[in-house]
This record gives sequence, structure tokens and C-alpha cells, in this order.
Amino acid sequence: MDRRDFNRRVLLGGAAVATSLSVAPEVSGAPGAAVGAVAAKAAPAGGQVRHMKLYAERLSGGEMGYGTEKGKATVPGPLIELNEGDTLHIEFENTMDVAVSLHVHGLDYEITSDGTALNKSDVPPGSTRTYTWRTHAPGRRKDGTWRAGSAGYWHYHDHVVGTEHGTGGIRNGLYGPVIVRRQGDVLPDATHTVVFNDMTINNQPVGPDFEATVGDRVEFVSITHGEYYHTFHVHGHRWADNRTGMLTGPDDPSRVVDNKICGPADSFGFQVIAGEGVGAGAWMYHCHVQSHSDMGMVGLFLVKKTDGTIPGYEPHDHGAHASGDDGAHAEGEGSGHRH
Amino acid sequence: MDRRDFNRRVLLGGAAVATSLSVAPEVSGAPGAAVGAVAAKAAPAGGQVRHMKLYAERLSGGEMGYGTEKGKATVPGPLIELNEGDTLHIEFENTMDVAVSLHVHGLDYEITSDGTALNKSDVPPGSTRTYTWRTHAPGRRKDGTWRAGSAGYWHYHDHVVGTEHGTGGIRNGLYGPVIVRRQGDVLPDATHTVVFNDMTINNQPVGPDFEATVGDRVEFVSITHGEYYHTFHVHGHRWADNRTGMLTGPDDPSRVVDNKICGPADSFGFQVIAGEGVGAGAWMYHCHVQSHSDMGMVGLFLVKKTDGTIPGYEPHDHGAHASGDDGAHAEGEGSGHRH
Amino acid sequence: MDRRDFNRRVLLGGAAVATSLSVAPEVSGAPGAAVGAVAAKAAPAGGQVRHMKLYAERLSGGEMGYGTEKGKATVPGPLIELNEGDTLHIEFENTMDVAVSLHVHGLDYEITSDGTALNKSDVPPGSTRTYTWRTHAPGRRKDGTWRAGSAGYWHYHDHVVGTEHGTGGIRNGLYGPVIVRRQGDVLPDATHTVVFNDMTINNQPVGPDFEATVGDRVEFVSITHGEYYHTFHVHGHRWADNRTGMLTGPDDPSRVVDNKICGPADSFGFQVIAGEGVGAGAWMYHCHVQSHSDMGMVGLFLVKKTDGTIPGYEPHDHGAHASGDDGAHAEGEGSGHRH
Repeated sequence: MDRRDFNRRVLLGGAAVATSLSVAPEVSGAPGAAVGAVAAKAAPAGGQVRHMKLYAERLSGGEMGYGTEKGKATVPGPLIELNEGDTLHIEFENTMDVAVSLHVHGLDYEITSDGTALNKSDVPPGSTRTYTWRTHAPGRRKDGTWRAGSAGYWHYHDHVVGTEHGTGGIRNGLYGPVIVRRQGDVLPDATHTVVFNDMTINNQPVGPDFEATVGDRVEFVSITHGEYYHTFHVHGHRWADNRTGMLTGPDDPSRVVDNKICGPADSFGFQVIAGEGVGAGAWMYHCHVQSHSDMGMVGLFLVKKTDGTIPGYEPHDHGAHASGDDGAHAEGEGSGHRH
Repeated sequence: MDRRDFNRRVLLGGAAVATSLSVAPEVSGAPGAAVGAVAAKAAPAGGQVRHMKLYAERLSGGEMGYGTEKGKATVPGPLIELNEGDTLHIEFENTMDVAVSLHVHGLDYEITSDGTALNKSDVPPGSTRTYTWRTHAPGRRKDGTWRAGSAGYWHYHDHVVGTEHGTGGIRNGLYGPVIVRRQGDVLPDATHTVVFNDMTINNQPVGPDFEATVGDRVEFVSITHGEYYHTFHVHGHRWADNRTGMLTGPDDPSRVVDNKICGPADSFGFQVIAGEGVGAGAWMYHCHVQSHSDMGMVGLFLVKKTDGTIPGYEPHDHGAHASGDDGAHAEGEGSGHRH
Repeated sequence: MDRRDFNRRVLLGGAAVATSLSVAPEVSGAPGAAVGAVAAKAAPAGGQVRHMKLYAERLSGGEMGYGTEKGKATVPGPLIELNEGDTLHIEFENTMDVAVSLHVHGLDYEITSDGTALNKSDVPPGSTRTYTWRTHAPGRRKDGTWRAGSAGYWHYHDHVVGTEHGTGGIRNGLYGPVIVRRQGDVLPDATHTVVFNDMTINNQPVGPDFEATVGDRVEFVSITHGEYYHTFHVHGHRWADNRTGMLTGPDDPSRVVDNKICGPADSFGFQVIAGEGVGAGAWMYHCHVQSHSDMGMVGLFLVKKTDGTIPGYEPHDHGAHASGDDGAHAEGEGSGHRH
């Protein structure tokens, strides 16, 4: 199976603009690959200037969402991927009847793109504003110190709906993931976003299920919002508590974990090889605060054998997860997408 | 004083099976030891296949525990130590009148050893089930990326009593520590487990006291369970926030801390040299959330001089700590053991 | 503008003892500085024996504070800076009508300097006690293992007022920052302390504003106290989640973050170049727990252009922040100081 078949990332500014925005043409060449083996796909150098359109919209049931096409907003909002050195201009249109904004974590932006009322960078109803995000590669400053690059698992959210910190906007769904990659970073086959927002996952009472086949390289982005702390846990898989979620090699002292405490606006990400060392199965991921998992902050990482079966798994076991999601939360349109 | 005198770790499958399970014969040779000095003891290579028996039992006062011998369950359950590459088959017997399970963090296990009702891997009353845990050393994948090894401070717990996430089982005491060591990892003289479980330590209203002599290499395993977040703090000693809790050398950038926030199912561990740079004393360890320490989430790390005295310490100062523990929580039978 | 103009750090034991205590004469020479460029100022080797006086005092409004001069206590208490290898003797005088103490995190101290009632190291009303804190550089132990140095962003606090854990003392303001630097650590132009203490910042209902000019090297020390968890966030700037908050170079795998969960007694620090890559502006810092920011746990990092202006910023926008602080909380006397 050629993993390229799953790649639906599209270039910004091209003819097809999907809800998942990748500006990363794939290149090969992770260092140290075994001779004769297929090296992992790696992120290219950045440096491009990109443009995209983003809408803030009301959804059914009192929710609000961000989307790249009118009437197609999702919760979480679209995944935005950049490479260090890229600049992204976002033409942001507010189709709602209240002021809204776009505030991003981790990236470089001038105060006019802060997305706060304090800095008059929010958007009145029916208006449009261009937000500019910049990123940079790491390097050495003139004083000899090392400057970190922009690479990381970041996120964006509203900062004005309800309160001057966007408490109402975030509660209603105005948030989404941003990934900035460094040249040479390994690219996944699929990326899934899990937002612990108060007592929901992605504003749903139960978490979405994510499908993969044994051997797929699957990336998770974990973001927390709202009022409560949580602990993110996944069964049968683990990650390094560092920048990429993957150890850089034998000398990387980072802790390897399968559970991590996080509070509002914390974000991190990692890649796993689905079923590596454990095989296929219906692997739970959940908040490990006991009352939170008991109340539904749980989803499944469904890892299939190459024949498509999942040992021991009967879809109806898992209650609400077997029923169809509504459009705004469907896999591939917000919380997850295949590359 | 020869530290080997304190070593009571036993090989699984041998004649003597204690509540503390070590599969690590000791070897010498930490890299870089000074000429003429005694190098720290180090973990050997793994790769062995081990077998053990584990019971889930009701204890007095509504508690539940895991134990390696019938009628000898403890809270926390026995410390299980493995070396990367080892496989452990656990013949697990449920002596209780409700279904129970064994779910482990960090290790490799097939979905049939998940320990969940979803995956039909729990154990009915009076029944037995074999859980298999595997571990692996780090290495490079065919695609050139680095695969983390299994080494870490992990833990196991019930996943079915009370709720489908084991909320009742964990509350009642069904949890315990697992340490997986990498070849060359430094071995301690003693290991102590501190589980912040709701507002208790190891299900006790006050924390246990741990004794050591100045110069002992003492390992702590910190695990959190239940509903609340906590901060683990110890007086006069500190650790690195990395895999082993010890810096790998001068280039290790990890933070050194003496206080760490943790939420349910988080776990970490570290080793200290008792009294290093500070001498003997009755050093508190406690949760630093103010109301939690005030309500009793406190114990003592009693570091003695070589003559056995502790400067300034009068045992009766510390109230409940001076009284004897009941058997299920005694030092050496669950929360701590000497090697 | 010569940054040395801002340097008001003073040597302990000299004629002028300010509330900010530095024992670090500045030296140049960060490794790897570009030829012809001005290398960042770096911390010298430690090893000095220092003496200081510290008072615990009642302040207006029921607050309590630490200060280096009688009648000049502040909340937070004075910043104490040391270099690895230094020893500090603190002649501590209790001017209050209740017993009080001084307990420090991260540093070496004998049990007689523990600052607890358990160890009889608290101070009765009207009495004086000398606390001794020691620090050490990293090095190798005789057994070949690596011993971490004392460098870090630490803190001190009362451990006896109200409860045996100082819950009342901490709530009322008895806390302050300690920085221990390693030889070669980069020195900042200014250091600001932000203490999330229950629902306050530095015991104030809103956070202080901190001023800088684009290009200044500004250090933040984040400390949490009390009952609640928080997430520390700053707009437009970010840091590495490691010992110094700055990556050591291209191989440092640490996560770069702009948001971090923290619980009582956690502390960390970092340096940013004010406005680097983003320019001047009124950059918010705040707790990102939504109700906490909405209730006022917010301040401004006011980064000015070299002409002194801040684009888009009108001081009266920010409500309570525009009004003058009372003496005990003024910038430069507790929460912040220029070097």
C-alpha cells in the first residue's frame, strides 16, 4: 500500500483548497535511514509566502467554528501546516453577528495581528481583516545565543467572544491546530486533533474515533481549552515529551510517556507507528481524570490489520462512537485528515 | 557498609518470591567512574522471559489490592522491575466477587492484555487470566527514525471495577508501580513508591515515612491517581525532569526540580543520594497544594547519620507517622522495599 | 543606549543593599559569539560567601512580606541571585507577632535551615535566626554518576504561618524568587517575577505591567502558590521548557512553548528578547484558565520602540493597570527590577 495514496494535503493558493492546509511538498531523506530501506518523508525548507481565506461562522446548536469555505466551518477549525520560514496571510471574514478574532500561539505576528480588543485587532460583524503570521528557522543571534525556531504544535483561537479573553468563543468551538515543521522533520501519514475543551473532546460529548492500519505513521495534536486540567492518555502507544514527540536519538534524555497533564492553551504533538509492537486493536485514548473519562472524554484509535479487521472489536460495543457524526465534526473535516 | 546487604530483590521464578519483584541481576560498570572508586551498580541487558503470579483481593476496610501471594495483597501493589527486552507473563487470579483487571502503562501488550471490558480482557470473579507484557530496547526503524525503548517509571491499575475506567478499583487501591530499566541504568539501594490517590498517599490519610542512611542511593516512584491534580515536593533533595530523574551529563538541558505538577495516571521517578550536600534529617515530602498538605498528604524521608541518629528529630513530633502501620501498608510490603 | 545604565544590581555586603540582591559581577564571553559582535553578558564562577539581612513584616491590608530593610518589605519578596558555589547566610528577623520562617526550594541547606516547625527552624515573634543556603556546581560523583548543579529558578516562602505548611503566610505574601546561575549563563537586562498566588498575581487583583524596549533581554520568573493550578501564557514571545528557558543549541530537543501548566510551588524562568520578530506592542501575559484571566490574572509586557512609543497602546485601555501601584508592589521593589 502506497501511503502517498492517502495524501490529500493541498498547496495553499492552488486550485483545490481543502479544510486541511498543507504548504509542505514532501521530500525524502531522514538522516540515518538504513541502506535499501524507504526513508521517512521529511519536511522541506520553508520560506514561502502563502495566502488563505478563513471564515468565522455560527453553527447549529449554538456552536461557532472556523472554516476555509463559507458554510463549511468545523470544530476544531482546519489544521494549518507551515514550514519554518513561511509567512501566511489570512484574509479573515466574520460572518457572525458579534465581533470575533484570530489569536495564534507560538508564531511571530505584529501587535496588529494579536487578535485582541486591547490591541484593536478583532473583527466586527460582517467585516474582514488580514492577519499575518510569520515563522522562522532557528539560528544564532549576534550576541552568540541560540534563537529557537518556530517549529512546534501550536494552535489558534478567538480572543474576544464573550469576554476579552474569548471565553465564549472558545467554549463554542472557535479553535484549531497549527503545526510548524522544521526542515527534515518527519511527515506523518495522517494527523488527528484532540481538543479537551472543558468536559468535551472537540466540543462533542464523546471523542471521535480515528482509524489507521498497522504500520501507519499517525500524528496526534493535543490541545486543551477552557476551565479544567486534564491528562491525555492513549493505550498501547507512547511518545517523547519533547518538541516532536519523537526522540532525536540515543542521547535524547526526554521522558517517554503515555499520559500527560495539560491545562488550558497547552498544546503538544507526537507521531506513533500504529500498532508498533502491540498489533491491531481498538486502543482507547482518554482523559485519565477518572470522572472525565467516566463522563465520556474517551475515543478509540482503531488500528486495523492490513486485511481491514480489528481483533476483538465490535463497533456497537462503544455506544455513541458507532453512530455517525454530523458534518461539522466528521473525520477529515476538522478533527482529523489523511495526508 | 556493603550495600549488597540490603539487597532483597529476588529473581522471579526462583524459590523465594517476595512482594518486590526484580528480574535484574546486578552488574557493575557505570561509564566514566573515577579510577579506584566503586562504580554505581548498573542494570544488565534484558531479554529474559519471566513468569509471575498476581492476585486481586479484598482487604479490610473496603480496600482492594494486588499481591503475589494469596492473602498478602498490598496497597500499592508489588513493585515490578524489568529490563528492556524482558517479557513478563502474569498469571492473574481474581479472588474477589466482582470482575477486575490489570492494565499497564508504557509497556507493549497485545489488545488481549489491555485489561478493559471493551476488549474483553477483564477477569470474572474466581477466574484466572494470563496477561503478557513485553518490553524492548531502543533502536532505529527501517525508515531511519529512532524508536524509543520501554525504559521508564510506569504503573499498572484496574480498569473495570466501578466504571469502565476502573474508578472504583483505583480508589480502593488496585494500583502499583512498574520500573523498566535500560542496560547501564544505575540501580538504587532502595525504591519507594508514593501514590497520590485522591486526597491520600497510598490510600492512607498520611504518607508513609521512608528511612535511609546518608549516602544511600534512594529511588522514588511518584504516581498520581483519581480526580485531583497534585504537586510532588521533597525537602532538601531534587531531581532532573527527564527519563531517569538524573542528568545524563553536562550537556543534558533538562530542568532540575524539587516540585512537579502531576495529574491522574502521570508517573515519574528519580534517584537521590540521601542527605547529599545537606546531611541527615527528617526531610518532609508532601503535596504542595496547600490544602492537601494541611490535610495530611505528607510523609518523612528520614535520613540517618551512619550512627543511626537523626539530628533534631523526635519521632513523636510527627503524630500519626509514629504509630505502626497495618500489615497491608507496612514499609517493605508495597510502598517501599530495600534492595 | 548602554544597558549598563540600567544595572542596579548591588553586591551583598557592600554599602548599598537594595531589595534586589545580586552577587553576580558581570563578565563577558558567551561561547560562540560572532566575531565583531557584542557577546551576551555571562555569569561568573561562584564560590563567594555572602551575608544579608532579611525581615518578615506585616504590611497594610493584612498582607505580610519579606524585605531587606526594616519597613520596606514587598510582595513578592526581594529577588535573591547567586552563582553556583556561593554560600548565603541570611540573618532573618521576625518583626511580627506570630512565628514565621524561611524555607527555600532547590538549594542546599542543613536541616537546621529547613524553616519548618517539625525541625524547630522557625522564628518566634521578635527573634532572629540565621539561615544558611549553599549552592554547588555540577560534577561527577565517585561512583561515576553525574551530580546536577544548583542552577535554576527557585523560590523561598514561609512554612509556619497559619498551618505547619505556611498556608496563611503564603496567602498573605510571604514568598519570593531565587535565581542560581551557572558560570557562563547569560545575564538579562531586567528580571520580572510573576507569582500566581491563588487567584492573584503577586497578591494583586490584576497583574503588574512590565516595561522594556525592543531588543532588551528580559527575564521572567514564574512561581505558583496556593490552591489552584494555572497556565502561564505570554503573547508574541516563547521559551524553551528546559533549565534556562533558552535552547542550548541545535541539538537541544526541548519543547518551545508559550504556555505552561503549573501548580503550587512549581517555578521556572526564561529570557526573551523583547519584541524579537514581532516588534513593539502591549503584549498580554496571563493565566490561560479562562475564568482566571477573566477575573484579572492578566498583566502587560509593554515593549516600546526605541523612541519610547508603543504602537496602538493607550494606557487607559487597560483599566486598573493604568493606576499607580502602592509602594509594596511597585515595579522595581519586588516583582521586577532593572539590572
